[in-house]
Amino acid sequence: MKHTVIESYFKEHREKHLDELKEYLAIPSISSLSDHKQDVAKGAEWTADALRKIGIENVEIMPTAGHPVVYGEWLKAEGKPTVLIYGHYDVQPVDPLHLWDTPPFEPAIRDEKLYARGASDDKGQVFMHIKAIEALLKTEGTLPVNVKFCIEGEEEIGSVNLDQFVEQYKDKLKADVLVISDTTLYAKGKPAICYGLRGLCGMQIDVKGAKGDLHSGLYGGAVQNALHAIVQLLSTLRNDQGKIMVKGFYDKVQELTEEERKAYEALPFDAEQYRCELEVPELFGEEGFSTLERTWVRPTLEINGVYGGFQGEGIKTVLPAEAHAKITCRLVPDQDPQEIAELIIEHIKEHTPPGVTVTTSLFDQGKPFVTPFDHPAIQAAGRAYQKAYGVEPAYTRMGGSIPIVETFGTLLDIPVVLMGFGLPEENFHAPNEHFHLENFDQGLRTLCYYWYELEEALKN
Amino acid sequence: MKHTVIESYFKEHREKHLDELKEYLAIPSISSLSDHKQDVAKGAEWTADALRKIGIENVEIMPTAGHPVVYGEWLKAEGKPTVLIYGHYDVQPVDPLHLWDTPPFEPAIRDEKLYARGASDDKGQVFMHIKAIEALLKTEGTLPVNVKFCIEGEEEIGSVNLDQFVEQYKDKLKADVLVISDTTLYAKGKPAICYGLRGLCGMQIDVKGAKGDLHSGLYGGAVQNALHAIVQLLSTLRNDQGKIMVKGFYDKVQELTEEERKAYEALPFDAEQYRCELEVPELFGEEGFSTLERTWVRPTLEINGVYGGFQGEGIKTVLPAEAHAKITCRLVPDQDPQEIAELIIEHIKEHTPPGVTVTTSLFDQGKPFVTPFDHPAIQAAGRAYQKAYGVEPAYTRMGGSIPIVETFGTLLDIPVVLMGFGLPEENFHAPNEHFHLENFDQGLRTLCYYWYELEEALKN
Repeated sequence: MKHTVIESYFKEHREKHLDELKEYLAIPSISSLSDHKQDVAKGAEWTADALRKIGIENVEIMPTAGHPVVYGEWLKAEGKPTVLIYGHYDVQPVDPLHLWDTPPFEPAIRDEKLYARGASDDKGQVFMHIKAIEALLKTEGTLPVNVKFCIEGEEEIGSVNLDQFVEQYKDKLKADVLVISDTTLYAKGKPAICYGLRGLCGMQIDVKGAKGDLHSGLYGGAVQNALHAIVQLLSTLRNDQGKIMVKGFYDKVQELTEEERKAYEALPFDAEQYRCELEVPELFGEEGFSTLERTWVRPTLEINGVYGGFQGEGIKTVLPAEAHAKITCRLVPDQDPQEIAELIIEHIKEHTPPGVTVTTSLFDQGKPFVTPFDHPAIQAAGRAYQKAYGVEPAYTRMGGSIPIVETFGTLLDIPVVLMGFGLPEENFHAPNEHFHLENFDQGLRTLCYYWYELEEALKN
Repeated sequence: MKHTVIESYFKEHREKHLDELKEYLAIPSISSLSDHKQDVAKGAEWTADALRKIGIENVEIMPTAGHPVVYGEWLKAEGKPTVLIYGHYDVQPVDPLHLWDTPPFEPAIRDEKLYARGASDDKGQVFMHIKAIEALLKTEGTLPVNVKFCIEGEEEIGSVNLDQFVEQYKDKLKADVLVISDTTLYAKGKPAICYGLRGLCGMQIDVKGAKGDLHSGLYGGAVQNALHAIVQLLSTLRNDQGKIMVKGFYDKVQELTEEERKAYEALPFDAEQYRCELEVPELFGEEGFSTLERTWVRPTLEINGVYGGFQGEGIKTVLPAEAHAKITCRLVPDQDPQEIAELIIEHIKEHTPPGVTVTTSLFDQGKPFVTPFDHPAIQAAGRAYQKAYGVEPAYTRMGGSIPIVETFGTLLDIPVVLMGFGLPEENFHAPNEHFHLENFDQGLRTLCYYWYELEEALKN
């Protein structure tokens, strides 16, 4: 592949590509609203058509219990690795509508940014994958890797049917690498490859004291207060330096390598600006770790909600009989969500204050994910970015979880490469979502370079 | 006074007295409901008429910003002590009506119990005071003490205008002893004189972290969680043995005398039954004190409410920016509410976790009250009970606060004697409120004996 050929191709077709993308973005495929069911179906059809047009074969709109998955494949690179490309054609709702400068489904370009719901998350990025493959097929007549597309319509409603779909079509989806373009650059001009996500486990904690709320005058002092009990219990979970005190909690945590630590340190990060943006008097977290390390590679235990007793205005001298808390942990490799949940339950049993009973109920769990930093598929992505952007990409992790990554990672057991082209400030899920066209241009090239780099990297 | 004469008088007039009381109870003088404003006025008139009929002079229905106070006096016992009798003619609402066996304002006697709203709390007891004075005036032609009546119509809505009323008519209400009959016997057949009440102070605690709720994945670990902070802060207020850890909190607490401790120990109290009734796995409170001591003579700090973050069903992986708590302390002599509030605020300042700001706002306060156990007015009440009931009365305290006691105690600076004739199981504020007629009979005699005992006791 000649870089200049590809570059010329994209330059030449830029207007046409953007017109096509505008057409795609004009479809209000809001998966959460039943009024838009037909629009979501239209989104699936548009995606399938776009795949067919560029030469993808066996394109199918595959039903699920909810919105369908669009599948397609190009498997003519005999003996070469197979890449599964995941994305989604559904979008978030658009309320509050009056905050949009131009209507969300009337795509408009201003200052080299394309404004529309889905421009960045994720139709824009799905479209780039399609156009990158098109460009290679048009200019080279072939691809260096085999490609499978799996573009779903329920990402914005939690990919509720994807687990079952992947389970059912495990063989059909079989691949060597999964590539997802639904994340962001580290910052403008600094591409990022996210190679790790935190997992999740959590539970509700219910504390029960007396048979009902009591008069704090008549009974106060003689009966355990459910709120005192829960406060006391919760305060044992984390110490005042931010360390989780649950026995065994850190046992399986992979320590950061010296190389990773140095790489994170080298990333541009302004802690004072971060503090100001969040409007906190100071940053706070586990001692001995930087902010990036705390959010990327260290596990957490957060109290997400506490409630009990009187919440109205003023005073009510009640001795509450019940108290409730919700906690979730963000987990890192190799913590196991079920194991951590059990450790916490054990801790709660050991620390239950006298005079109350405590019960717990578990929430959904997700395993932490990491593709080794030095995995050839990751390093190949780095080289592709470097070529397109002219700068070394950041190797990052993300503090959150992307459930589909776990779904694919677990069911297909393949490395996942998160190559995103959005920017953190592009208003995903909010009014005036947009996409910087410089990343449209550079992203298309990155993808083309990546397939060659990947083929090369996986050769051995 | 001859006991037999008084006894005969009450026996003879029992039917008539009960009929009159039923008439009183038939007035739905619900102070909290504006629909019943006229009924409350009727309640005041009935009370005033009843006072006039027995020979009380200068009876007035005195307006306040809300419902009026009924005042009356008999001041012909020259050189003798003056007693101020406080009670209230207003009643609680009656919902849920369908749980009443007979309508709340159609008084009915079953099994020697009088069922009606207000039977016990407090019209029945106000009525007894009126009839006791009547009996003495009829049989003796005079009273051993001077008497002032102050019967209000807003007790069930927090005596909202009484402070101002007492302040305004301080001179008119001047007396040597205040007697209130709005409390209960210790148990059936065991009268009680409550000589102490706990005071109250409290505050709202507001914790503020970041500018808004944050995604627990993206920010978790790097920013203080307002709920973690409040839990940590609240957990420092009380240790796990129920002791309040605020510096100086216990400094002014009057220690129990050996005599009082022995008297409490001698009272019938079944801790296991108490535990079962409250349905708690075990009783819990400050070490080294019995349940009665914990609720009567030891101060508390209770969390009345905590709220922050997500309270809905299931999970929301939020890192909350705000958390709130309401706390109140029950105080005992000689703790000062304002001083205790300041100690707590100081404690909060010293224990504020990093990464958040904490603000507090104070609630209304009430001073603890105690009339010395061996005060002649208290001991005289003991003898009167002993004569009427044939048993030694219990000298008790109450864990709650009665704001009017503090009002009178502070503004008039006189001892307060709480002589109640209700029983704890008589459903005050609940459906099927009732009054045991045995205590109507014995109570009338107790009151008659008391005025003589009191005159005797205050002689020196």
